[in-house]
Amino acid sequence: MRIVIPLYPHFTALDAVGPYEVLRLVPGAEVLFVAAEAGPVRADSGALAITADAALDEVDACDVLVVPGGPGSRRPPAALAPWLAKIHETTRWTTSVCTGALLLGAAKILDGLDATTHWGAVEQLEAFGARYLPDRVVFQDAHRVVTAAGVSSGIDMALALAARLTDQVTAEAVQLVVEYDPQPPFDRGAPAKASQPVRDRALEILRDASNE
Amino acid sequence: MRIVIPLYPHFTALDAVGPYEVLRLVPGAEVLFVAAEAGPVRADSGALAITADAALDEVDACDVLVVPGGPGSRRPPAALAPWLAKIHETTRWTTSVCTGALLLGAAKILDGLDATTHWGAVEQLEAFGARYLPDRVVFQDAHRVVTAAGVSSGIDMALALAARLTDQVTAEAVQLVVEYDPQPPFDRGAPAKASQPVRDRALEILRDASNE
Repeated sequence: MRIVIPLYPHFTALDAVGPYEVLRLVPGAEVLFVAAEAGPVRADSGALAITADAALDEVDACDVLVVPGGPGSRRPPAALAPWLAKIHETTRWTTSVCTGALLLGAAKILDGLDATTHWGAVEQLEAFGARYLPDRVVFQDAHRVVTAAGVSSGIDMALALAARLTDQVTAEAVQLVVEYDPQPPFDRGAPAKASQPVRDRALEILRDASNE
Repeated sequence: MRIVIPLYPHFTALDAVGPYEVLRLVPGAEVLFVAAEAGPVRADSGALAITADAALDEVDACDVLVVPGGPGSRRPPAALAPWLAKIHETTRWTTSVCTGALLLGAAKILDGLDATTHWGAVEQLEAFGARYLPDRVVFQDAHRVVTAAGVSSGIDMALALAARLTDQVTAEAVQLVVEYDPQPPFDRGAPAKASQPVRDRALEILRDASNE
């Protein structure tokens, strides 16, 4: 089972690595990171680079596509949208995390579908003809499409996907292997749970973090 | 504030990238990935490499040290333990995720301390003189040491640490930015929560995943 994760400059690392860590543990899974060109691709922070082991044009099919988000999703390499549109025709599941949904949108994969994205990107998502749902993970089974909310939600998405790709016991075992028994020290992970000062600070941090 | 994350062959990517994604959003934080030599370092899966931007011997101080785990923690590069012991003297917080605790143990940093690690590595941890606690995150404030349980627990650890490094509003804002509002599709993230078949399958997956 081939899992392909396309990277691009200024992607958000956890968007990619959360689902990677879950899906790579599914027996028989093989993960491949790809990018416009093979080689290290810098994340949004500038402090982390993940190596793409193949170029986009070397890969034309996969079972599961995982598209991470990040500030770079606003101006991706020109080759990315046509590549996504084409490889989507071959997948069992086409998935996105965070603003990766905007890249699926640009590839016309979300038109008319229910979808989710980072809470800060709702309008951009809807501009692609998707109906935003404020859910953490949105499955559109008939279209083989799954979208996840911001950054860390890719872990939840990948576990749900693992159960569909294999069986319940295997997916639960993967959860146990990565010891995903979340115990956040506070409970402000969604806009509705956060105070106004926390929301304001989050927007400041997002703005500074996107300032490339 | 300098956050340093040492990598080594066969590390587990999410151990490093979970805390990275949280801590890099703390205003003023600068993250640096290091390794025995600068350049890409392959994770345990073989499918992912993160670039170390500096060699261990180029870095001799930091504010926060984050040591990821992985199968490679059983036979790390020879230079790692002495480097950890030395840089630990300079840190505000020395932290580990998963079997990264074994590397702290090998550097004699956990002797006599309470600590946690991946549920599959308890005996090895105690062999270093640490007292294992089955908690997700264990702070030892007097020693400036924090250990986290398996893989995904580094996210919880880093959020708790962010609150101590900055202030509550900022740490909550970081949680909101990474939309860490976990909703796992099932609840098997700790051995006590999993059935025997799930535990058996998890051990199989761990064995296969560590088979380098």
